[in-house]
Amino acid sequence: MKYKKEDEYSYSLGATLTYEALGNKKIEIDNIFYNSKTSEELVSEFDKICKQRQIPFELNNKIFNTLSSKENCFIIAKFKKFENMIANDKPHIVLVNPSNMGNLGTIIRSALGFNVCDIAIIKPAVDLFDPKTVRASMGAVFNARVQYFDSIEDYLKNFSHYNFYPFMLKAKHDLREIQNIDLNHTALIFGNEATGLDDKFLNIGESVIIKHSKAIDSLNLQTAVSIALFHFTQNIKEF
Amino acid sequence: MKYKKEDEYSYSLGATLTYEALGNKKIEIDNIFYNSKTSEELVSEFDKICKQRQIPFELNNKIFNTLSSKENCFIIAKFKKFENMIANDKPHIVLVNPSNMGNLGTIIRSALGFNVCDIAIIKPAVDLFDPKTVRASMGAVFNARVQYFDSIEDYLKNFSHYNFYPFMLKAKHDLREIQNIDLNHTALIFGNEATGLDDKFLNIGESVIIKHSKAIDSLNLQTAVSIALFHFTQNIKEF
Repeated sequence: MKYKKEDEYSYSLGATLTYEALGNKKIEIDNIFYNSKTSEELVSEFDKICKQRQIPFELNNKIFNTLSSKENCFIIAKFKKFENMIANDKPHIVLVNPSNMGNLGTIIRSALGFNVCDIAIIKPAVDLFDPKTVRASMGAVFNARVQYFDSIEDYLKNFSHYNFYPFMLKAKHDLREIQNIDLNHTALIFGNEATGLDDKFLNIGESVIIKHSKAIDSLNLQTAVSIALFHFTQNIKEF
Repeated sequence: MKYKKEDEYSYSLGATLTYEALGNKKIEIDNIFYNSKTSEELVSEFDKICKQRQIPFELNNKIFNTLSSKENCFIIAKFKKFENMIANDKPHIVLVNPSNMGNLGTIIRSALGFNVCDIAIIKPAVDLFDPKTVRASMGAVFNARVQYFDSIEDYLKNFSHYNFYPFMLKAKHDLREIQNIDLNHTALIFGNEATGLDDKFLNIGESVIIKHSKAIDSLNLQTAVSIALFHFTQNIKEF
């Protein structure tokens, strides 16, 4: 029962994450599991929820050994993966070839933190539904709209009415120059963790750099996305 | 030869990190090691450097097995830990009880990226010189000044001429209101990853919040520090 990318189901590892899954009507939960070390309190709590929601709740030590290397995982939900379409009138984060599951999860979480709920991912890319991504997102994957595209051209074609801001070291504009944006038709585009965006992105929209000192080669991806989100949402009074 | 916090020495895991250590005169390197899988090219390169610098260079598979779980680690340097005093006329990042080594490393790296080289750490806290922290910092620990303090009072006493900005959810000020700061006497203060700063920090300097949506409980520590660094350095034209 090891998780595979092509599976129809994925797993939320831990009680907190499972609460997040339960709290979202979009998520179809097939089973919830506990193990021999799960506290009585937690067992009785989830037993109650599962009865109410008519979700099978079972003891299954094996699934914990297979899916989780963490000592502190006592509840696992098996949920059906879902597909989303991103909105065509709301801001996008576009991730080109992201390769790290932990990063992808935390980036989605940061995006939701700034009310950016639409994430485009350009393939090849890591799996949104890998339990590691789901866990790193602390449940944000349940609440975001995430859509995969085969190529950047494929994405750009669908959103030609958007303003594109590729983030890259060779960029034309300092992020701080970019002001008063129509946030609803804005796409912030970021490259792979190790390689960034290639030169063709210099010809797509307005390329942007987050200036940093020479002491480092580049800001890490999660840092860059978070700073961009903060800057682009600076005129929003209340989230 | 497992690494321990009380050891006099630590280790840079990987060739890139070892280059960073070699590039910094402050770092005393005792030995450099390679293993049976290290490429001939890398061995001959480091052999040359080690001869020039009179550093013993030796085959040692055991140290790789003990220190590194990563497959792609082929060079390790053993270096002497060092102590720093932080500057009293330059901006500080103050981390109160940081508990995650990876976070500490990446935060130090982000700080250097915005020319903030002075990091105060309030105990209890994770070990700056744990090979995991060093690795996550991508060598930034070699170039930063990091000083541990027994308590926040101890830190505040030494820098009473500073302006303190504790970052916390109950804060009085929106980060975006804070403008035109004398950056050189500024301390940005952040709490533990899970618990944040406690209420006593409301009475220290000007407390600040990075506003975010209700979709998340809080921004993660690394994200918060990076956004704060970006905002506080916004008037710096060139890094």
